[in-house]
Amino acid sequence: MSDKILFQCDYNEGAHPKIMERLLETNMEQTVGYGEDPYCARAAEKIRQACGREDLAVHFLVGGTQTNMTVIDAALRSHQGVLCAETGHINVHETGAVEACGHKVLGVPGTDGKITADRVEAAWLSHIHNDSFEHIVQPKMVYISNPTELGTIYSREELTALSKVCHRYGLYLFLDGARLGYGLTAPDNDLTLEDIARLCDVFYIGGTKVGALFGEAVVISHEELKRDFRYFIKQKGGMLAKGRLLGIQFDTLFTDDLYFEISRHAIRLAEKLRAAFERKGYPYLVENRTNQIFVILPDADLEALSEDFGYCYDHRVDESHSAVRFCTSWATREENVDALTNAIFKL
Amino acid sequence: MSDKILFQCDYNEGAHPKIMERLLETNMEQTVGYGEDPYCARAAEKIRQACGREDLAVHFLVGGTQTNMTVIDAALRSHQGVLCAETGHINVHETGAVEACGHKVLGVPGTDGKITADRVEAAWLSHIHNDSFEHIVQPKMVYISNPTELGTIYSREELTALSKVCHRYGLYLFLDGARLGYGLTAPDNDLTLEDIARLCDVFYIGGTKVGALFGEAVVISHEELKRDFRYFIKQKGGMLAKGRLLGIQFDTLFTDDLYFEISRHAIRLAEKLRAAFERKGYPYLVENRTNQIFVILPDADLEALSEDFGYCYDHRVDESHSAVRFCTSWATREENVDALTNAIFKL
Amino acid sequence: MSDKILFQCDYNEGAHPKIMERLLETNMEQTVGYGEDPYCARAAEKIRQACGREDLAVHFLVGGTQTNMTVIDAALRSHQGVLCAETGHINVHETGAVEACGHKVLGVPGTDGKITADRVEAAWLSHIHNDSFEHIVQPKMVYISNPTELGTIYSREELTALSKVCHRYGLYLFLDGARLGYGLTAPDNDLTLEDIARLCDVFYIGGTKVGALFGEAVVISHEELKRDFRYFIKQKGGMLAKGRLLGIQFDTLFTDDLYFEISRHAIRLAEKLRAAFERKGYPYLVENRTNQIFVILPDADLEALSEDFGYCYDHRVDESHSAVRFCTSWATREENVDALTNAIFKL
Amino acid sequence: MSDKILFQCDYNEGAHPKIMERLLETNMEQTVGYGEDPYCARAAEKIRQACGREDLAVHFLVGGTQTNMTVIDAALRSHQGVLCAETGHINVHETGAVEACGHKVLGVPGTDGKITADRVEAAWLSHIHNDSFEHIVQPKMVYISNPTELGTIYSREELTALSKVCHRYGLYLFLDGARLGYGLTAPDNDLTLEDIARLCDVFYIGGTKVGALFGEAVVISHEELKRDFRYFIKQKGGMLAKGRLLGIQFDTLFTDDLYFEISRHAIRLAEKLRAAFERKGYPYLVENRTNQIFVILPDADLEALSEDFGYCYDHRVDESHSAVRFCTSWATREENVDALTNAIFKL
Repeated sequence: MSDKILFQCDYNEGAHPKIMERLLETNMEQTVGYGEDPYCARAAEKIRQACGREDLAVHFLVGGTQTNMTVIDAALRSHQGVLCAETGHINVHETGAVEACGHKVLGVPGTDGKITADRVEAAWLSHIHNDSFEHIVQPKMVYISNPTELGTIYSREELTALSKVCHRYGLYLFLDGARLGYGLTAPDNDLTLEDIARLCDVFYIGGTKVGALFGEAVVISHEELKRDFRYFIKQKGGMLAKGRLLGIQFDTLFTDDLYFEISRHAIRLAEKLRAAFERKGYPYLVENRTNQIFVILPDADLEALSEDFGYCYDHRVDESHSAVRFCTSWATREENVDALTNAIFKL
Repeated sequence: MSDKILFQCDYNEGAHPKIMERLLETNMEQTVGYGEDPYCARAAEKIRQACGREDLAVHFLVGGTQTNMTVIDAALRSHQGVLCAETGHINVHETGAVEACGHKVLGVPGTDGKITADRVEAAWLSHIHNDSFEHIVQPKMVYISNPTELGTIYSREELTALSKVCHRYGLYLFLDGARLGYGLTAPDNDLTLEDIARLCDVFYIGGTKVGALFGEAVVISHEELKRDFRYFIKQKGGMLAKGRLLGIQFDTLFTDDLYFEISRHAIRLAEKLRAAFERKGYPYLVENRTNQIFVILPDADLEALSEDFGYCYDHRVDESHSAVRFCTSWATREENVDALTNAIFKL
Repeated sequence: MSDKILFQCDYNEGAHPKIMERLLETNMEQTVGYGEDPYCARAAEKIRQACGREDLAVHFLVGGTQTNMTVIDAALRSHQGVLCAETGHINVHETGAVEACGHKVLGVPGTDGKITADRVEAAWLSHIHNDSFEHIVQPKMVYISNPTELGTIYSREELTALSKVCHRYGLYLFLDGARLGYGLTAPDNDLTLEDIARLCDVFYIGGTKVGALFGEAVVISHEELKRDFRYFIKQKGGMLAKGRLLGIQFDTLFTDDLYFEISRHAIRLAEKLRAAFERKGYPYLVENRTNQIFVILPDADLEALSEDFGYCYDHRVDESHSAVRFCTSWATREENVDALTNAIFKL
Repeated sequence: MSDKILFQCDYNEGAHPKIMERLLETNMEQTVGYGEDPYCARAAEKIRQACGREDLAVHFLVGGTQTNMTVIDAALRSHQGVLCAETGHINVHETGAVEACGHKVLGVPGTDGKITADRVEAAWLSHIHNDSFEHIVQPKMVYISNPTELGTIYSREELTALSKVCHRYGLYLFLDGARLGYGLTAPDNDLTLEDIARLCDVFYIGGTKVGALFGEAVVISHEELKRDFRYFIKQKGGMLAKGRLLGIQFDTLFTDDLYFEISRHAIRLAEKLRAAFERKGYPYLVENRTNQIFVILPDADLEALSEDFGYCYDHRVDESHSAVRFCTSWATREENVDALTNAIFKL
C-alpha cells in the first residue's frame, strides 16, 4: 500500500508464506479453543526440543506488551518491582502497562540498552541495606531484552553473570525476545536457545517481528512461575479464542529451522546495508550486528532518502544531524536493500 | 483435527474464506503498524456507514476480554463500577479482568441474561440515596451483551428504555457484541446497527465468533469515551503491531453485507437444530432464536450424542438430566447439522 | 456536640480514659517511628500472650478498610479472589477497596451475615471442577467477620469447620475482628482468642470500636502471610509515622484485661436495651447477643424516638415499618440507656 | 523512651500540648463519624480563611503516603502519570503506592529536590511530539513537595512559573506540604498560604510533622479534583472513623496562628544548629534554611556524636565522610539543641 519502501520497523508485512499456507490448509478444521488444541501442543513440544529441555512450560500469547505485563504480573507480589535498563521497552514504550498492573518499573542506568550483573547487584544491596527498606519497592525480577531496543546483544558471559547474580539474591531473570531470532543469528552472537532456557527463569521467543502474523512464545523454566500461568493469560486479555492460530504459526517456525533461517536472511541484508552506511562514513548511534541499524545522518541526506524510503526517526543529534533507525526483517527484499544502498551511495 | 463434529462453541474453525483470500493477497504489502494503515481506515469508514453516522470513533482490538477491560477501564475513575447481570461475561468468565484494572463489577439480578431499565434505576437510586454512599462503589456504566451469554436478545423497546435510564443518571451504556451478527439476524430481532449506535455510548461488533480469525471492532459515540482511547488499547496489550490484519478482516466482513449474510447462515442452521430438539420434546434451559441452543437432555441421551458430537456442558439439572449448549456459526456445515439432527431423532 | 444521645454506631466518642492518660503521659517522649518503638513491641507481646502463642506476627494499622485491603492484597496473587458473605463489609461498604487492589470479592450467600464451611467447599469445588476454571477468578482466601455486620457470631464448631475446609483446599482464613471484643464477651459466645489464633491464618483485633481512638491489631499465624508484611502496610498508606500511638493504645487495652472488661460493659447495656425492645414486642431483623441490635419498628415509633436519640436507619421493611440499628459500646453511659429504655416503654 | 536525644526526624514525639488538651476535653463528646462532624467543618473553615478563599474543598486524611496516593489516583485516568523530581517522595519512599494504584511516576531530573517549569515543559513537549505518544504514559500531573525531601523550598517566582506551565498544558499542580509550616516560616521564604492555594490545584498542609499526632489537610481548588473526592478517601483507607480527631487537631493548629508559631520554633533551633556546623566548617550536602540539615561529617566525628544523639544516616560520601540529616521540629527542646551544639564544638 505504501508508495515508499519501508525500513522503519520489522512488522511492515504479513507472515512468512509457509505460515500463510499452513493457516489456509487448516482453516476449516475444527479444534477446541484457548490454546488447548493439538497444534499448540506440537509447537510447544518443538520449542522444548529446540531448548533442549523437557520440563519447560510453553504458552503462546498475541503480542509483546501483553506478554511483558502478563509475565511480570504473574511473577510479582504487589510490593515488588522489576529492574530494567532505563531505556527498556517496559519502562518507556508500553504506556505504563506494568504500572497499570500495580508494579513499579525500577529503571537502572544501562549501557547501549544493556544492564550488567554489577548494576543488578548494586540495586539489590542498596535496597536490602537501606534502613527503611520497607518504604521502598522490593526488586524481585530483572527484565532484559535480547536484542535490546538498541539492537545490542548479551554475550554468554554477560548473561551468565546476570543469571548468577539474580539467583544469588532470589530475583527472577526475564528475557524479552521480541527479536530473539535476529539476536541469535547475529555474527557476533555466542548464545544459544539452550543457554537462554538454562540461564533465564522465563523468556519469550518473538514471532510478530520474526515471520509470524503475530504471536510470542513464552518459555518458563522456574517452577514458581509455571503455577497458574493460564489464569494470568486470560485475565490480561491474551488468551486467543482460536489459540491454534498461534500453535500453527510456531509449529511452522520451528519446523526445519525456519525461524533461524529467516532470521539469518534479515541479518545478511542488515550487514549489506551497514556496509553502505560505513562506506559513506556515517557514524553509528549504537553499534550492533542485528537487524536494527542506528545511524547518524546529515539532515539533508535524510531528506533525500525520505523521498523513496521509510525509516524511523529517533532523535535530533545536533543542528544538522539526526539519529535514525533502519530495520531489515525476514520479509525484506534484497532488491529493496539494493535500491537503498544505491541511494546511499548517491548521497 | 477433532474426530468428533464440534458444536460446542462458535470459534472452532478459522476464518471465512474471503478473509483468508484477502489476507493472502495483501500478505507481502508494506504498511505502517498499530492500526494506522489504510485498511483499518477503510474498515472503520464502512462500519461508520453501516451505523449511519459519521461521528463515530472505530477501533480494532484482538479479543473480547481485552476489549471489555479496555473499554471499561477507559470509562471509569477508580471509585466507579460497572453494573451488569450476575451472569454477565465480565462478572463470571474473564478471570477478574475488570477487577484487575481496579473496578468492581456490580452484579444485579437478570432475567435470562438480560437486565432491565428498572433494575438499573433501582441500583442507581439505592446508591445515591444511601446515607453512606461514599462507602459504596459508584455505578457509572451499564454493561450488557447482545446476544447475552444465554443467547437472548434485547428488543428495541428494552434497549431504548435502558438507554434512557442510563442517560438520565449519567451512566454510560456499553454493549458487548461478541456475537452481534447472530443477534441482529435472529428471527425475533427488531434492532438495527443504527439503533445500537444511537442508543449505546460504546459497543463492539464481534469478529472472532462471526467469521474472522480474531478481532472486535469498538464503536464509540460518546465524546468523553473517545478521548485518548488509543492509549488504553496500548496499555492493555490490545494494540496489534500488524494492525492491518484487523482492518483487512473487518473491511471484508463489511463488504457486500458479508457479516450479516454469514450470520444468517448460522441462524438458519440453529433453527433447524432447534426443530429437532423440539420434535423430541426436550425442554430449553433458556429460549432464544440466536446461534446458541441451551437445552436440557437426559444424561443417557447426552452420552449417546457424545460419541460423535461435541457440545458444551453447562450444569447438572437433576439426577438424570443436564443442561448443555449447542452452537452453530458462520462455519457450520449443513451436513453436520443433518448428522446431528439424525442422531437426535434416533435417541 | 450532638444534641441527641447517639446510639447509631460504636465510634461516636474518643478513647477510653486510661488510653488518653497514657497518651498524655508519654506525649513528649522521643521514640523511633513507623511502629518500631518499644510500645509497639510490648503491645505485640501482650497480644501474643493473650493468644497463647509466641510465633504470631503482630502489626498495628489505623483503620478497618485499610487493614482489610492490606491483608487481602498481601495474601493474593492477581488472579485470586476472596470469598465472603454477600453482606460482607469488604463486598458492600468499602468503596471497592479490594477491587482497587486488583482482586475480585467473590460474594457467596450467607445466613445472618455468616458463611458456612459447606458454602466454602461448594464454591471451591465448583471452581476447580469447571472445565474453563482458568477463565474464572481462583478463590484463595475466605473473609469472615466476627461479629458479622449483622452482629451475629461464629461458634467454635462453625469456625473449626470453616478452618478445616479452608486448610483442606489451601485457602487462607481471615477473620475481621473490628468488633471482636463484643463478640468474645457475648453471652452465647464459646470462642476464645486462642481458638481464633489457632483456627485462622490471620485476623485482627479491632481497637477503633472497642476503646481506642483508632487502631487495629493484625495477628498473623500463617508463615507465608508474615513475609514482607510491613511493605504492604507502607504501600497501602497504613504505616503511621508515630506508630507508638498504636502501641500505647493496644498496650493499655491488653493490660489488666481492659479490652474485655470494656467490651462486657457494652454487652451488658445492649442486653438491657434488648430487654426493652422485647418487652414491647418489636421483632428483630436478626437475632444476636452482641452490641448491635437490629430491630424492626413502626415508623411512628421511630419518629418519636428520633427526637432525642440517634440510631442507624437500615432499610424499609414494609409501608409502615423500618429496620434500624442501635449500638452500645465501651463508652455508652448507663443513664443514656435508661433514658432510651424509658422512651421505648412510653411508645 | 530513647536513651539518646533524637534529631533524626520530625515525628519522634506526640502532639503539641494544646492539641492533647483539646482531645482530652472533647474525648467523651458524641459526634457523627467519618469527618462529617462540626470540628472538621470548623477546621476546614479556618483553613479556607487562612488561604483567603471560600471556594476551597478541605479534607482531612491520616498520613502522607495515603494522602499522596489518594490525591494522585483521584486525579489521573489509567493512562496518565505524574511528573516528579527523581528524588521525590512518591518516587523513592512510598513502596510504590502510586504504582499500586496503577499510575507511573515519571521521574525527571531535579536540582536539590526541586523541578523547574522548563523541565516540566520539556517533558510535556517531548511526550506530545513523539510519533508514538500513545505508547508512552501521558503526563497529567506535576507533584512537588515544599519543602522538598532535601529541605529546599520554592520561591514565589519558581512556583508561579510551574503553575503557568502546568495550566498551559492542562497538567494539575500538586504540592505535598508534609512539612509546609517549616517551609513557610523559613528565613528565605517568600511564599504565603494564599499563594499556594492560588498557584496549585491541590496541596496539603502537613500535621504529622508539625504539631499533630497525625493528620494532613488536603486543600483542593480545581473543580474537577473536588468531585467525588470522599469516595477516594474511603477507598484508599484514609477515612478515619472518628474523623473529628483530625478536625480537632487542625482546628487547634489553625487557632491563634499556632501552626506557624510552632514552625518558627523549629526553624529558629535549626538555624542555631546550622551555625554550629558552619562554625566547624562542615560542608552541606544541600543548602537550605528549613528544619532539615543535610551535612557532611567525618565518620569519626559522626561516631562521637552517635553516643548521645540520634540522626538520620543518608549515604556515604567518600571513604571517610558521610552525609547525614539532623532535624528539628515543633517539639525540639532548646536544651537538647544546646547539648548537641556543645558536642559539635567539642569535635
